[in-house]
Amino acid sequence: MNLSTLVFGRRLANREYEDKKIGWIEAVPAMGLDGLGSSSYGPEATLTVLIPLGAFGLVYIGPVIGCIVALLAILYFSYRQTLAAYPTNGGAYVVAKENLGEYPSLLAAAALMIDYVLNVAVGVSAGVGALVSAIPSFHPYILPLCLVIVFVVMLANLRGTGEAGWLFALPAYLFIICFLGAIAYGLVGLGLGDKPTPAIAPPPLHPAAQGATLWLLMHAFASGCTAMTGVEAVSNGMGSFRQPVMRNAYLTLTIIVVVLGLLLGGVATIASAYEIGAMDQTKEGYQSVLSQLLAVIAGHGAFYYIAMASLLSVLCLSANTSFVGFPRLCQMVAADGYLPKAFAQPGRRLVFTVGILFLSGSAALLLITFGGITDNLIPLFAIGAFLTFTISQAGMTQHWRRRSRRFGAKLTMNAVGAASTGAALVIILIAKFAEGAWITLVAVPVAIAVLKMIKSYYISLQRELRKPGPITLEDIEPPTVLVITEAWNRLSERAIKFALTISPDVVAVHFIRLGGPDREEGEKALREEWRVEVEEPIAALGLRPPRLMLIPAPYRQLHEPLLRLIEKLDADSPEKRVAVLIPETVKDRWWQKLLHMNRAGRLRTKLVKLGGPRLTVATVPWRLYREEQPAG
Amino acid sequence: MNLSTLVFGRRLANREYEDKKIGWIEAVPAMGLDGLGSSSYGPEATLTVLIPLGAFGLVYIGPVIGCIVALLAILYFSYRQTLAAYPTNGGAYVVAKENLGEYPSLLAAAALMIDYVLNVAVGVSAGVGALVSAIPSFHPYILPLCLVIVFVVMLANLRGTGEAGWLFALPAYLFIICFLGAIAYGLVGLGLGDKPTPAIAPPPLHPAAQGATLWLLMHAFASGCTAMTGVEAVSNGMGSFRQPVMRNAYLTLTIIVVVLGLLLGGVATIASAYEIGAMDQTKEGYQSVLSQLLAVIAGHGAFYYIAMASLLSVLCLSANTSFVGFPRLCQMVAADGYLPKAFAQPGRRLVFTVGILFLSGSAALLLITFGGITDNLIPLFAIGAFLTFTISQAGMTQHWRRRSRRFGAKLTMNAVGAASTGAALVIILIAKFAEGAWITLVAVPVAIAVLKMIKSYYISLQRELRKPGPITLEDIEPPTVLVITEAWNRLSERAIKFALTISPDVVAVHFIRLGGPDREEGEKALREEWRVEVEEPIAALGLRPPRLMLIPAPYRQLHEPLLRLIEKLDADSPEKRVAVLIPETVKDRWWQKLLHMNRAGRLRTKLVKLGGPRLTVATVPWRLYREEQPAG
Repeated sequence: MNLSTLVFGRRLANREYEDKKIGWIEAVPAMGLDGLGSSSYGPEATLTVLIPLGAFGLVYIGPVIGCIVALLAILYFSYRQTLAAYPTNGGAYVVAKENLGEYPSLLAAAALMIDYVLNVAVGVSAGVGALVSAIPSFHPYILPLCLVIVFVVMLANLRGTGEAGWLFALPAYLFIICFLGAIAYGLVGLGLGDKPTPAIAPPPLHPAAQGATLWLLMHAFASGCTAMTGVEAVSNGMGSFRQPVMRNAYLTLTIIVVVLGLLLGGVATIASAYEIGAMDQTKEGYQSVLSQLLAVIAGHGAFYYIAMASLLSVLCLSANTSFVGFPRLCQMVAADGYLPKAFAQPGRRLVFTVGILFLSGSAALLLITFGGITDNLIPLFAIGAFLTFTISQAGMTQHWRRRSRRFGAKLTMNAVGAASTGAALVIILIAKFAEGAWITLVAVPVAIAVLKMIKSYYISLQRELRKPGPITLEDIEPPTVLVITEAWNRLSERAIKFALTISPDVVAVHFIRLGGPDREEGEKALREEWRVEVEEPIAALGLRPPRLMLIPAPYRQLHEPLLRLIEKLDADSPEKRVAVLIPETVKDRWWQKLLHMNRAGRLRTKLVKLGGPRLTVATVPWRLYREEQPAG
Repeated sequence: MNLSTLVFGRRLANREYEDKKIGWIEAVPAMGLDGLGSSSYGPEATLTVLIPLGAFGLVYIGPVIGCIVALLAILYFSYRQTLAAYPTNGGAYVVAKENLGEYPSLLAAAALMIDYVLNVAVGVSAGVGALVSAIPSFHPYILPLCLVIVFVVMLANLRGTGEAGWLFALPAYLFIICFLGAIAYGLVGLGLGDKPTPAIAPPPLHPAAQGATLWLLMHAFASGCTAMTGVEAVSNGMGSFRQPVMRNAYLTLTIIVVVLGLLLGGVATIASAYEIGAMDQTKEGYQSVLSQLLAVIAGHGAFYYIAMASLLSVLCLSANTSFVGFPRLCQMVAADGYLPKAFAQPGRRLVFTVGILFLSGSAALLLITFGGITDNLIPLFAIGAFLTFTISQAGMTQHWRRRSRRFGAKLTMNAVGAASTGAALVIILIAKFAEGAWITLVAVPVAIAVLKMIKSYYISLQRELRKPGPITLEDIEPPTVLVITEAWNRLSERAIKFALTISPDVVAVHFIRLGGPDREEGEKALREEWRVEVEEPIAALGLRPPRLMLIPAPYRQLHEPLLRLIEKLDADSPEKRVAVLIPETVKDRWWQKLLHMNRAGRLRTKLVKLGGPRLTVATVPWRLYREEQPAG
């Protein structure tokens, strides 16, 4: 049992993939943490924009959140159709590729990738921010806490979603139960009395500083839309569901969207009834909207702390949604040649290791750059998601159009989805352009350019290695085999014997002047030894004996004189290939590497890199002290 | 012109070694900085021990320094004999090895190596300490300054002593001129008047706190002996001298020792005449003994600052003596197999790169561990040097004894040297045992044990790779050649063609199920393509066509199924060797490495490490985009 088995678990076979798949019970926490977590900052963001209106702002919270919930409902029905139409993978990238072509699909891929990375950074830093405001003594450790969370979520995902389940399931379901319960209790209270009494009254709202303007309401809507990121996750993660796939996917999507909708609607209703407004985060005594809401309904008892703890955990772990979506998206993009092939390769635990590492690395880099406080990145955040929604729905519209008229209703549904998410996208872009949305507008084309460059490299690689047609054999003359010989020992004996099995034309190459100036060489002794021990016995068998060639290496580098020799051999007999045989001792222990010069390894690297096209480089390995090895 | 050429200079050929050798003018600064620098802290250390005696202590400074100078004289004449007897290398290691045997030579080597490393750390930190007390605003940067100096001296030495000359020569000669001049001027002044008038009077001495004891005087002597480290350098560096070697070596040794002796004697005389004592370093207003001496003779004019600047530079750069001695010592020890072979290999500039790097690394580690303040290491410091002196002189005594009676005078000289340095060693050990000398007594045996372990590894390696005797050829049947084939393309075509030139028994191995679950394989298409493009054309030529073998790799690792196949082949025909041919694309640019999975490289490493003794692993390289390569 080695270290990686301990950390990541044993290596899984392909056939074990089925056992790793998940049902809706595991999928809701795995894919839904982002959506659930955003129910806390969506309404909060809306109410923050409405602060200048004072108590008057509560009039608008209902309509604004209503628009968002309506949009969510449209998205839900549109995505149900997408899942049905693309049961193996209904991500925006696939839908766009099949229906809209290359560039829209790359646009969707780039937008989604950026969004996934932002989601990790923003989610973790928001969670840690909330944690720190609850326990101020953690304040000096914001960045380390963020990085530890990213690291833990990364490790859990490198082990595979299955095992990672309980880590995410516990806070997710606790959160759902607590907050849906609190809201239901609050709504029942509202239904009984006409003027409810709060358990703990929220702080009074400031007087209105200005009147409502269209700009302000657009801004409130745009800010609230951050609550809807994460809906894409289910369509992207279809491959993780076990049978019955469709039922699991539907249930997962339904639960996430319904819970999110209920939370948004409930928060809006209770906030306006109890006059809960957003508070200034930078001021002393700040309390989040959900914290005020819990206090109003249930007071500051044990329930309050359990519910807040579940909220904190959900926020901290909301990054996990990205870890489910990002590697799968990258796998598809890589399989099409727009990302390095390694992104498409399942690792030890059948997860896409490279994607997980890349996501963690990029998010960690963002967090380090911003010192763990990524508030400024939030405006950049919803754009990717809404861009993806719009492209996906537009693709679905095209999908139904290519089919027959029978699908008119479905077409309409997706067209409505495309139009409404597109409209929301335009509103978000306008409202948040100056706050940082323009950065996304720069980053997306850059990402697309990189994807295209990678693709063109693979195309040119494919062209270079193109199918050669039927094999032709002009010559199958055995190659000249050069055997690197340090001395006449068992290592070189084995190499010479192997060389003689593949070609009668064997030359032993021994470098002289390698040890620097003032070194004794013993050239004569080696020549004599060679004659007695090698040449004469082989000649006695009637075979052509291998010559011994002494090559000066006055610059103490092996590859240069050897490459010159090979060039000369190539020039002398251009039809003959050259093979270099390098005997190499295999070092099993780290300290052995310190005691050997690794000349063999370095020579091999140089020859492979600089040798001509007709050169083959072979290693004859000798494992030290492992066994009594036969001499051949 | 690449980066390493810019930093280190072009690669030198062996024959250029003669041009790199140095004469006495360059050798005095290269080998003498340690000795010259120690003239500043030797008398200072003695006077510090004498502080409790107050002005009365000045009575003893003369005799104590007198003893040290006498010891220096004995050492000078002893070492002259050593140089004459061992004109190529007269280091203690060689002398002990030839005359006293293995363990004394390892004792000398270990003591010297530890001393060289300590000298770098202590010298640099002493220099920086003096610099910081002159310019207090540098105080926060003690450790970075130390590391920068080690780095600069390391770079200068990696380029080679020749070019490094001016960096060390300027401060060395300036120091000699300034201080010998000042002392001469001071002595002349002393000779003219009977009570001299100081230019600036030294601070008055404290009243005596105690009387002189033997313990105190022993301690004063032991502390002053640090002035003598560095005398060994010339004998160790004989290989650096150009013709006439003996004259250059004699002159270098003479200049270093005479200057050191004059400085010691002069400082002692002037200090006792003007009543200069050591001051407490930890107190405000501290001035070193040499600073007081300059002020007394010449006041605080431009000369004072020039002389002090040269002293600072000499102290900072005194580490260079170690850089001359340590790599050469390691080279000899490594050539005998007690250190990794890499220590014996001259690098790009014909210097022993590994030794230089190791010395810099160890010294940097010491400096970092102690935060750049290595005062506590000074007591450990002289022991190595005096241990070396004693062993070297004892070895020379033995050397003359083995010869005839004719060398009686020389024998006596070296015996006196051995006895006196041995006596000094005992005094130092006793006086400084509790202060840290015991650490050296622990470190030396540990170092010797490591040297012996390395040697025994090389001996067992030699035994394993022993000379096999005359070659025997039971079978020269061609091997089974396994060609790793990803697809039928120009890469695999070249590999198959090469395989056919070395053996008729070629098998193409294609891995399936490598891409993870749910992947399309196209096995049928590949089989069909293989039949049409490879098997049929080759069969048409009347040759045995290479089979295509599809091997499942359900764990997505190539080496395991391949090793199983090789095991099976070995079992089926134990007399037949197996060769694996891996086609590999050569990546010239760093970004290409990101875009390829490097499966070829990883497979090769695993096969070499884990393959059986009869396995050969060959790479058929394909350099991308470098040239229109011929297909063979």
